[in-house]
Amino acid sequence: MARLSTIGTHYIWDIQRVSAHEISYVFEIRTLLRHICSLTPLTIESESYKQFQPVGATGIMLLSESHLSIHTWPEHEFLAIDLFSCIPVDHQRITDYLTSVLSTDDITIKILERGRVPEQVQAEITIEKQDQSMM
Amino acid sequence: MARLSTIGTHYIWDIQRVSAHEISYVFEIRTLLRHICSLTPLTIESESYKQFQPVGATGIMLLSESHLSIHTWPEHEFLAIDLFSCIPVDHQRITDYLTSVLSTDDITIKILERGRVPEQVQAEITIEKQDQSMM
Repeated sequence: MARLSTIGTHYIWDIQRVSAHEISYVFEIRTLLRHICSLTPLTIESESYKQFQPVGATGIMLLSESHLSIHTWPEHEFLAIDLFSCIPVDHQRITDYLTSVLSTDDITIKILERGRVPEQVQAEITIEKQDQSMM
Repeated sequence: MARLSTIGTHYIWDIQRVSAHEISYVFEIRTLLRHICSLTPLTIESESYKQFQPVGATGIMLLSESHLSIHTWPEHEFLAIDLFSCIPVDHQRITDYLTSVLSTDDITIKILERGRVPEQVQAEITIEKQDQSMM
């Protein structure tokens, strides 16, 4: 019986006790998001940002491989980052960067596997690979 | 001691066994996202879409209250929807809509609470409320 695999992986960071001065404005979170992307093979298709008043910002990148988002609440010294990707990324490298640049160790990461490849499709892939090995 | 509360709620739908004809193109997922929003008090700030070839699409809405995203893999009859909100939404109403419009009952929802309101801030809010009640 074919083993089921998943379609995408969703990395979820919740980061607390961050200085409000680091996460109040769009120019700060744009730098964060672009640097995270530079640590990966991800491809940026488009970016959207929103400055909230008096402080706090949202940034969303539409990627060829899904999306990367950030929301900040400087008044709570909190930011939330989500990376949904259908290709592997080195999440530990991103966590190390965030811990360092935001000067906090109050960071949690959850990793969710998203979507099952149906058995039938998985079986077809397996058969195709067997055929190739017989050539 | 003040009770901790959370800053946002993240609703995560994984939906399988959906007809590929329902989720192949941007115009279909734009309709889905806009209808989901219409079931809530959420405010759309901007929208971005990407059509993949030959089929499959991504749509992301930047909301005043965080974000709403969708990614589809018609070849796997799968779509993933994320709604991150800092205000309450009726997630059951959204699930009912998705189940109905996509003609599938293979739908799962995860709900994550995101971010803690620090105790100090929570305590200040409590004190402020007490002061007001004494006026």
